[in-house]
Amino acid sequence: MQVARVVGNVVATQKDPKLVGFTLQLVQPIDITTEMPTGSPLVAADTVGAGVQDIVMIVGGSSARLTIKTADSPVDAAIVGIIDTVNILGETMYSRS
Amino acid sequence: MQVARVVGNVVATQKDPKLVGFTLQLVQPIDITTEMPTGSPLVAADTVGAGVQDIVMIVGGSSARLTIKTADSPVDAAIVGIIDTVNILGETMYSRS
Amino acid sequence: MQVARVVGNVVATQKDPKLVGFTLQLVQPIDITTEMPTGSPLVAADTVGAGVQDIVMIVGGSSARLTIKTADSPVDAAIVGIIDTVNILGETMYSRS
Amino acid sequence: MQVARVVGNVVATQKDPKLVGFTLQLVQPIDITTEMPTGSPLVAADTVGAGVQDIVMIVGGSSARLTIKTADSPVDAAIVGIIDTVNILGETMYSRS
Amino acid sequence: MQVARVVGNVVATQKDPKLVGFTLQLVQPIDITTEMPTGSPLVAADTVGAGVQDIVMIVGGSSARLTIKTADSPVDAAIVGIIDTVNILGETMYSRS
Repeated sequence: MQVARVVGNVVATQKDPKLVGFTLQLVQPIDITTEMPTGSPLVAADTVGAGVQDIVMIVGGSSARLTIKTADSPVDAAIVGIIDTVNILGETMYSRS
Repeated sequence: MQVARVVGNVVATQKDPKLVGFTLQLVQPIDITTEMPTGSPLVAADTVGAGVQDIVMIVGGSSARLTIKTADSPVDAAIVGIIDTVNILGETMYSRS
Repeated sequence: MQVARVVGNVVATQKDPKLVGFTLQLVQPIDITTEMPTGSPLVAADTVGAGVQDIVMIVGGSSARLTIKTADSPVDAAIVGIIDTVNILGETMYSRS
Repeated sequence: MQVARVVGNVVATQKDPKLVGFTLQLVQPIDITTEMPTGSPLVAADTVGAGVQDIVMIVGGSSARLTIKTADSPVDAAIVGIIDTVNILGETMYSRS
Repeated sequence: MQVARVVGNVVATQKDPKLVGFTLQLVQPIDITTEMPTGSPLVAADTVGAGVQDIVMIVGGSSARLTIKTADSPVDAAIVGIIDTVNILGETMYSRS
């Protein structure tokens, strides 16, 4: 799973009927060791109630449809966890405040 | 989902029979925070009636076949939403005009 | 779908039995706005009878198995259309000669 | 499969119910010929009991759900082997200590 | 399919039970027009009996499970052919010796 920061959201009125009801978060993939952005922001279906600035796990590809909320939907990115703590080589590098 | 701008379309007479009837849009992935292009343009099956200059959501991989129009078709990219508004850190960064 | 130019083909005698009978084209992904190569050439199963120098649509991932010819085959790239015309912002940027 | 080094782990309390019980390792993809990092760290579901500093095989995409532990779970990366030895051009380049 | 050169192999004792019995080759993706490496080496399940220095076709993603040997296994890369000849713009650029 990719590590990303929630930076906002998008609104789309004209969309696939199966996308109605999703919170479409804008997430910026990051290198968690530096918290620096890597690549472009993505739109991800939120399945866990994340908020702006949260660091989250993004699941991509067909596995993005393996949550109860996203089953059979045309999504290729879903937020499946809000990260509380990141431990690297025995040290806590990130802690959700 | 990737964020992209519709920049045109492609026409192909010799193609897989299951592609007949699709509008094949040419879409340029962008970094929505800067609206700058990232990577090469893709061909995406349009499922929502997007027009040139619209900023859209592109779903890729097997999930591109999860719309009613694209089911069982050999497509790996589909336009599944036209973005009206992008909010970043509480500010509206893009609004469809 | 990726846009690519057919640049040649490959021959493989020792291969998976389900690959027997395929024309294995060598395709170079391009940025269609500049016709410049992007990334490395791929081997793609041809389902439409493309020729060297044709600009084609490549479908990747599981969707490469959604053509009649490639069903259930171990392929992750298939040529599914020969592009006749590319229109960008209202102008014809490429026309097959 | 990608080659990566286990560098730590992540903890997430709010997550998809199907992710409960997984050890979520933080893995850094590496170029095994140089052991240098390539790209950003990923979160991978551990199916083999790897430890920090182990060099492992990561399976991605839908195949990450093909282990007994990860079946039907929203994961797109799983650790499926701990590498003991890497042989390159007849020489042992890496040996687990 | 990606074009790669077989450069070695990896040994893993602790691994998913469904990976037992596979030859796990280390393959270096290359640009076949220059034979130069591109990106990091991957571990691929060998289904055709390739040897070190062979140039091979790698199938990735779910299609890596579409060979008889790899069906239902947690692999995302498989060697499905040994390339004998590469023809580019009418000239033989590579011939297996």
